[in-house]
Amino acid sequence: MELLEQIGRQAKEAEPLLRTLSGEKKNQVLNQAAEDLVKHTDRILKANEKDMARGREKGMKAGLLDRLQLSPKRIEGMAEGLRQIAALPDPIGQVMEEHTPANGLRIRKVRVPLGVIGIIYEARPNVTADAFGLCFKTGNAVVLRGGSDALFSNQAIVEVLRETLTACGCPVTAISLLSDTSRETAAAFMKLNEYIDVLIPRGSAGLIATVVQNSTIPVIETGSGNCHIYVDEAADLSMAAEIVYNAKTQRIGVCNACESLVVHEKVKDAFLPLLADWLLDKQVELRGDERARAAVPMKEASAADWGTEYLDYILSVKVVDSLSEAIAHINRYNTGHSEAIITEDNSHAEQFLREVDAAAVYVNASTRFTDGFEFGFGAEIGISTQKLHARGPMGLEALTSYKYQIYGNGQIRR
Amino acid sequence: MELLEQIGRQAKEAEPLLRTLSGEKKNQVLNQAAEDLVKHTDRILKANEKDMARGREKGMKAGLLDRLQLSPKRIEGMAEGLRQIAALPDPIGQVMEEHTPANGLRIRKVRVPLGVIGIIYEARPNVTADAFGLCFKTGNAVVLRGGSDALFSNQAIVEVLRETLTACGCPVTAISLLSDTSRETAAAFMKLNEYIDVLIPRGSAGLIATVVQNSTIPVIETGSGNCHIYVDEAADLSMAAEIVYNAKTQRIGVCNACESLVVHEKVKDAFLPLLADWLLDKQVELRGDERARAAVPMKEASAADWGTEYLDYILSVKVVDSLSEAIAHINRYNTGHSEAIITEDNSHAEQFLREVDAAAVYVNASTRFTDGFEFGFGAEIGISTQKLHARGPMGLEALTSYKYQIYGNGQIRR
Repeated sequence: MELLEQIGRQAKEAEPLLRTLSGEKKNQVLNQAAEDLVKHTDRILKANEKDMARGREKGMKAGLLDRLQLSPKRIEGMAEGLRQIAALPDPIGQVMEEHTPANGLRIRKVRVPLGVIGIIYEARPNVTADAFGLCFKTGNAVVLRGGSDALFSNQAIVEVLRETLTACGCPVTAISLLSDTSRETAAAFMKLNEYIDVLIPRGSAGLIATVVQNSTIPVIETGSGNCHIYVDEAADLSMAAEIVYNAKTQRIGVCNACESLVVHEKVKDAFLPLLADWLLDKQVELRGDERARAAVPMKEASAADWGTEYLDYILSVKVVDSLSEAIAHINRYNTGHSEAIITEDNSHAEQFLREVDAAAVYVNASTRFTDGFEFGFGAEIGISTQKLHARGPMGLEALTSYKYQIYGNGQIRR
Repeated sequence: MELLEQIGRQAKEAEPLLRTLSGEKKNQVLNQAAEDLVKHTDRILKANEKDMARGREKGMKAGLLDRLQLSPKRIEGMAEGLRQIAALPDPIGQVMEEHTPANGLRIRKVRVPLGVIGIIYEARPNVTADAFGLCFKTGNAVVLRGGSDALFSNQAIVEVLRETLTACGCPVTAISLLSDTSRETAAAFMKLNEYIDVLIPRGSAGLIATVVQNSTIPVIETGSGNCHIYVDEAADLSMAAEIVYNAKTQRIGVCNACESLVVHEKVKDAFLPLLADWLLDKQVELRGDERARAAVPMKEASAADWGTEYLDYILSVKVVDSLSEAIAHINRYNTGHSEAIITEDNSHAEQFLREVDAAAVYVNASTRFTDGFEFGFGAEIGISTQKLHARGPMGLEALTSYKYQIYGNGQIRR
């Protein structure tokens, strides 16, 4: 625990220096870090092999082992990620607004780093380099608490990055990794308000819920997506089938995949058989209410299905009598992530866009586009499902705050 | 506790309607509410008299009794506050950004309400009308937990506001007040994540710390200000004395009052006697380090003084050898609120603005200007001392979030 305090304090001590680094300097460090990661591929792979061996011993599942495994190509991918971050414009120092109220003060709102960012994540070691890149570019120090399964890999990556920082004359505590991956230390980490300005959990719904429940540090909640597509009575049905197919099956384990279909009564008999045909090749299991089952044979949906993020080849199907009923259903069960309407009717589209409460609301497009890169942000630290601070895909700006710089010439308050 | 759940759920249920109210309708309600508050002055004063009688019985201090007391003039002030909020532009629905990335989707970032805002505050009943006005204007429902000392007054104000809402055809649960002011209910309120989107504590440092420690709902931390003024070696000393006098004495019980003076060694002998002269009429107690005491007789500052927000006629005085030392001292002890430098040297001013970590950093002006009205925001829900979501004076925009509305024509993810 004392070590934890020390890590937090040292990260905080790096803050003043990181805050004032020029954009040019930061990009030089990021490009150097990319080069160094590639140069030290063997060293990182050796550490990763230790994690892999331990994982296999523990009987870790193939999917998890795959996420844990590094390769020269994956390390090159991490390096490329850093180079891409270097190529983005520096948000720090940007003047966001400037005005002079009646008191004559010149007030400038200027973008600044958040300070020290804590990131709690699970087994993917590429997050380590990625989180460093995003935090460093925005002038923040980062304290990482990765999963125990990836500890050796994470340590090796952090060592290389710290060597780069030293070589470039920057404080090594710009990045720190908790080597104690116990629950007790994680719990204490979530209460380190004195040193950590914001905590971002990345991983399973369970991990995120634990952080939200236990952290006294402000949290940016990312993650779970119970995303709906509503096929309106005025939908182009073949477009609808293609979009649902894409949103459901293009990648199933992601938060922006479609989990639930809502269909207008008037088109269910034409649409559901068409969709069932599309979904056949991926053997998607449909679970529907009574009217959906009357249109196409499928399993019966239980009440729990409406609120479930399957992350699997399963889709729930609800039939509604009106757009308003569709919106009410979605607002009741969604997780504030991504929702879509398929319609050719503009007034229906506008009502859906206005009334559905989610980070991203689509007309005639797949929910799979909710992503920092697809949104053109050039990078992404996660997708926020909360309304405070940042909502939806979070790019570099989500890792910044602002301050007011005020120029006076002797003003006093009357 | 069941009642608490019910209050939360009903506030959440009002959300879809509040979200879509037109600006015109909201302003009509706010102006009507102002009129109704004035019309029901007697009723509100009668309720307030019950609180006052109980307060006097309990031996409440004169200052607290004064904050609790309402009068026709104070009720008119509450009404005027609502009228001013009505006159402000409606932030909801504003298109903040619009762009089309390579995938051809048209992405609009649109300002939306936060949802349901919880406000926990102490004895001032005017906060009740004020919080309603700000939240209603921004399309949010508000759930209030006021202090037990003001319960009758708060209930009367909420009753009047709910009558206005009914008369205007709006959901009464746009505003709710917890009538159970026990600690247990407050604790449960802070964990009502299902219904409350953000919690804003307004009041003493102790209240705010309790909320930060116990809430699982995202909190906007407001409040405590250990504000410094640094008198640089290149300062106009008479301007410095006038500004310190203003920031220390114009109003002592507020978060943007100056609590600590930092003086450059080179000017301490000229400046401190001059300042002591200014402060004489308010009998301000100075507490200094060794060098400050050598320049002017004053009490000795203890280590605890540097971190103390006095809210009283007391000022700590620290002498430094350089601008950098001043900045380091301020960054160590400040609460991220408001800090000022008095200097005629532009490069010193720029370094101070860049390196001091606070919501508002001033050159040659009093820290007392950190305020939503002085900043020209037209209204204020509080002053944020955190970096997430909102920093510094929070106007209407601090009570909003955004969503992405995305227009496609059949796009799927490849």
